[in-house]
Amino acid sequence: MNKQEKLALVESALEDFYGNQQFASSLREAVLYSIHAGGKRIRPYLLLEVLDSLQVPITQEHAQVAAALEMIHTGSLIHDDLPAMDNDDFRRGRLTNHKVYGEALAILAGDALFLDPYALIAQANLPSQTKVDLISNLSLASGSMGMVAGQVLDMEGEGQQLSLEELQTIHANKTGKLLAFPFQAAGIIAGLDENLQRQLKTVGELIGLAFQVRDDVLDVTASFEEIGKTPQKDLQAEKSTYPALLGLDQAIAFCNQTLDQANAKLEEISQVVSFDKEPIVKIVESLRING
Amino acid sequence: MNKQEKLALVESALEDFYGNQQFASSLREAVLYSIHAGGKRIRPYLLLEVLDSLQVPITQEHAQVAAALEMIHTGSLIHDDLPAMDNDDFRRGRLTNHKVYGEALAILAGDALFLDPYALIAQANLPSQTKVDLISNLSLASGSMGMVAGQVLDMEGEGQQLSLEELQTIHANKTGKLLAFPFQAAGIIAGLDENLQRQLKTVGELIGLAFQVRDDVLDVTASFEEIGKTPQKDLQAEKSTYPALLGLDQAIAFCNQTLDQANAKLEEISQVVSFDKEPIVKIVESLRING
Repeated sequence: MNKQEKLALVESALEDFYGNQQFASSLREAVLYSIHAGGKRIRPYLLLEVLDSLQVPITQEHAQVAAALEMIHTGSLIHDDLPAMDNDDFRRGRLTNHKVYGEALAILAGDALFLDPYALIAQANLPSQTKVDLISNLSLASGSMGMVAGQVLDMEGEGQQLSLEELQTIHANKTGKLLAFPFQAAGIIAGLDENLQRQLKTVGELIGLAFQVRDDVLDVTASFEEIGKTPQKDLQAEKSTYPALLGLDQAIAFCNQTLDQANAKLEEISQVVSFDKEPIVKIVESLRING
Repeated sequence: MNKQEKLALVESALEDFYGNQQFASSLREAVLYSIHAGGKRIRPYLLLEVLDSLQVPITQEHAQVAAALEMIHTGSLIHDDLPAMDNDDFRRGRLTNHKVYGEALAILAGDALFLDPYALIAQANLPSQTKVDLISNLSLASGSMGMVAGQVLDMEGEGQQLSLEELQTIHANKTGKLLAFPFQAAGIIAGLDENLQRQLKTVGELIGLAFQVRDDVLDVTASFEEIGKTPQKDLQAEKSTYPALLGLDQAIAFCNQTLDQANAKLEEISQVVSFDKEPIVKIVESLRING
């Protein structure tokens, strides 16, 4: 199954869930506005790609799990953009949710995207224990021991001089855990033992870290057209970033070294389980910054 | 097990989940502020009480499911009170979450309370299929097909002349589904067939409806001291209410008739399954308004 086919399955799963709801049409509209805001679907794509690499035939059920993950990510973007949070007017070149639908509906659209995905997974045609493991880990990755905690730490770190370690803790939670989840989830669905699940998860964590460093670097170097949002927001918000902490060249090197580690871990995994690492290596390489 | 022992089990489950978290202490503090804001724990108490009536020995696992339900309810109160929503400064006689912790942290505390409870249920020591059924129904009751949809409809109905049917649809979703969940959840945990689960759920829906009518009536008739929040907020917000639509006396009668129906349904259930309905009837009667 090629990338387009995988992404089409994810779109179907999202559309099936939100397309046919009978009431609160404004809520559906607000939710779908952000769902269809042109995100690259990197998290759901990673899940299906890793499954594919593990030789698991991809089905609709897997796309539902991937869609659930994308729902939580999308909800977090809506809340992140709110006036009380990052106060962003644009995301990916379009108005943010609250600029179109107002703050109240944007808050509720985010809430729905946090509460709904668990029913989507629970109703998927997968073994009960698999669903319980997926739900447990998705919840831990996104709530007060994951993404939300990271957002709090990030907010509290504004205007402060953070150490590299503090910065990594913030990002490991804020973005890392939801980027590691697709790797872990693929391991759960494929029925791998816990040790291999953990190793796959580590690859995801490394990619998540590189992703964040890259984001920080692009915030400094790219234009509005290139990243689809107001550049240099981090600077304005006095956020600690990798370029600010390490210098631009060292930040780029750090990103690329982290990607090297991810590749090494992929090689390790492919030694012990039937795993075609090349498609994942390709994704890793797409994050490399040519300094 | 008496009421106090049941409630103590729920407090332990909440404390175990949030008490020992290692980082983002401000998030934990904000979450616990609202968790400990003096709510009556009616939803978790109902779950354990119905289980007890079904002769299921109550354990820590059941308290964890009850705690998960209370977490979602608490999250919804935090978001409801936000300036962009109801803009309430007080709840239960104390400052609302955002008045103490600021809007950003209040939004994130609510988010955590929506995302965390699924891990709590998933990790409970219950059969996998039971957990999947509980999670599926809790998610449906709270997300875009339940509570959140009800909040959107409620918001959109402000300043409009709603029919009794429209008002009931709003409340069935906004508050009814989370009040019906403990009845359904007890049926799931007790292993009752789907028909009996549905009958129990209907009792919950009726209690939920009566609860809302009562709330509307108290908003008109009670003082700040009696209800712990600013009275006549509904009137100020130009919300359709049962007293406004039916008149005060008819609204009180409607509340009490709904409670009669709940009692009749409890009697029906007790004819076909081993079920001690008296403690639940007592709860029903506690909602009766003496007109």
